[in-house]
Amino acid sequence: MSYFIKEEKIRFQHIDFAGIVFYPRFLEMLNGLVEDWFEEALDRPFSKMHETNGIPTVDLKVQFKKAARLGEVLTKSLWVKNMGGASLLCGFKFEDQAGAICLEGEVTLVNVAFKDNKGGIKAEPFSEEMKEKISKYVIPTI
Amino acid sequence: MSYFIKEEKIRFQHIDFAGIVFYPRFLEMLNGLVEDWFEEALDRPFSKMHETNGIPTVDLKVQFKKAARLGEVLTKSLWVKNMGGASLLCGFKFEDQAGAICLEGEVTLVNVAFKDNKGGIKAEPFSEEMKEKISKYVIPTI
Amino acid sequence: MSYFIKEEKIRFQHIDFAGIVFYPRFLEMLNGLVEDWFEEALDRPFSKMHETNGIPTVDLKVQFKKAARLGEVLTKSLWVKNMGGASLLCGFKFEDQAGAICLEGEVTLVNVAFKDNKGGIKAEPFSEEMKEKISKYVIPTI
Amino acid sequence: MSYFIKEEKIRFQHIDFAGIVFYPRFLEMLNGLVEDWFEEALDRPFSKMHETNGIPTVDLKVQFKKAARLGEVLTKSLWVKNMGGASLLCGFKFEDQAGAICLEGEVTLVNVAFKDNKGGIKAEPFSEEMKEKISKYVIPTI
Repeated sequence: MSYFIKEEKIRFQHIDFAGIVFYPRFLEMLNGLVEDWFEEALDRPFSKMHETNGIPTVDLKVQFKKAARLGEVLTKSLWVKNMGGASLLCGFKFEDQAGAICLEGEVTLVNVAFKDNKGGIKAEPFSEEMKEKISKYVIPTI
Repeated sequence: MSYFIKEEKIRFQHIDFAGIVFYPRFLEMLNGLVEDWFEEALDRPFSKMHETNGIPTVDLKVQFKKAARLGEVLTKSLWVKNMGGASLLCGFKFEDQAGAICLEGEVTLVNVAFKDNKGGIKAEPFSEEMKEKISKYVIPTI
Repeated sequence: MSYFIKEEKIRFQHIDFAGIVFYPRFLEMLNGLVEDWFEEALDRPFSKMHETNGIPTVDLKVQFKKAARLGEVLTKSLWVKNMGGASLLCGFKFEDQAGAICLEGEVTLVNVAFKDNKGGIKAEPFSEEMKEKISKYVIPTI
Repeated sequence: MSYFIKEEKIRFQHIDFAGIVFYPRFLEMLNGLVEDWFEEALDRPFSKMHETNGIPTVDLKVQFKKAARLGEVLTKSLWVKNMGGASLLCGFKFEDQAGAICLEGEVTLVNVAFKDNKGGIKAEPFSEEMKEKISKYVIPTI
């Protein structure tokens, strides 16, 4: 049972007129964290997966607790709160270098297959192999 | 008591490899809705406000219910669920042309003043004039 | 012979820490201008076209002449400097409300067809119908 | 005399419906390359500089030669073609892992100082110290 952890540096393109991260950029960083997790930990790189499958985000809850500024390096952590048949409830938090939480929340991802040359999608259960890989990141909320 | 309503067309820059809106782009559209509301309904355009003040998003909850595709025109609605002294809990929904909800949720905004040439921020109560303008958009959840 | 003209308002998501448009956002606005031109003037909406075809940008030259700030409304103009068999050399300029040019330049677009379910692309000549529609926007440089 | 070189991986947020990098994202990557060069090679991190100064892009020429796809790692190179008193003409190229050039071009940056709390800007010559650091990256075009 462990967190999936990556670092990301706050860049000029992320910040707004107030000099702090524009919050939709934080969600791009979250998407990048999920992307890295699928590639590095679950052996399912988006570059392969997205011809036939996707993992759309269906629910998102975020608390923005502390602004992040240009040049800061954030530590992004992801874990699984609950694994369903075709969905995952993941927890996440982004911390600054002093360990303060900039944002935290939870996101629900659904495993889907594309039908009819991307014209439609339907939920598809995770394979047993995927479930086993995912299970290493399950940290149930107490 | 009314909704603040704007339309937005789904453009090429919004969509991903699956041909649907990349969800951080939906949050840019939500930010744009808040921006329009402040300018058009509350007489507080970001272009004036952001020299001295801001309204950072501190909490966000979104359910993504239906994918949106290139060329669709969404109707974005915003309203106030609860007005605090220096914060607003707003509801929002984005509907497609058939009236189906693509996403809905709530967002908490805090009115802040910048201190020390943008080095710091602190919460600042809304003026009576702002409260009156905001009150027209209060639609309490039943 | 005429320009294709659209307006775009500078929004919070476009500007950077200096309070001016971050230049990659100007290129998103340029892409949007081409997108509108194809849909509104050439009857070839990206939402239809992108299943089988695309018009990638292969060459871009831009002079950024004047910063644009939050709240400004820019007038974006596009025209054709030269029409090749499968390519277009287009001129463009973005002007502020006082008529000052914020940016101007030229962009080369190539008409391509996707092969093998998006795995490859090849140049494809414009149809006679497309050529006729495009010809209305040809303004050769003197 | 050397190139400033960084790698960047193509991520889901960079690509479009055709599965290739949306070209404004390439310009974000170029901006990131300049940002890294200023921080790592010129000891002038944007996080410090942007309170009082900036280096806006005033001219950009790009040839897009080869599409880049999700998961590819590009090698981004930057060098100085000509150093003026307050401006730099830089060359750049992005290559894929096989050494093929995806894009190349040149960009003109101007060193400016902000006046009147960001209300205005004016060109400011580079210091001798900066010139010396920059000179290491001068590779004149033959």
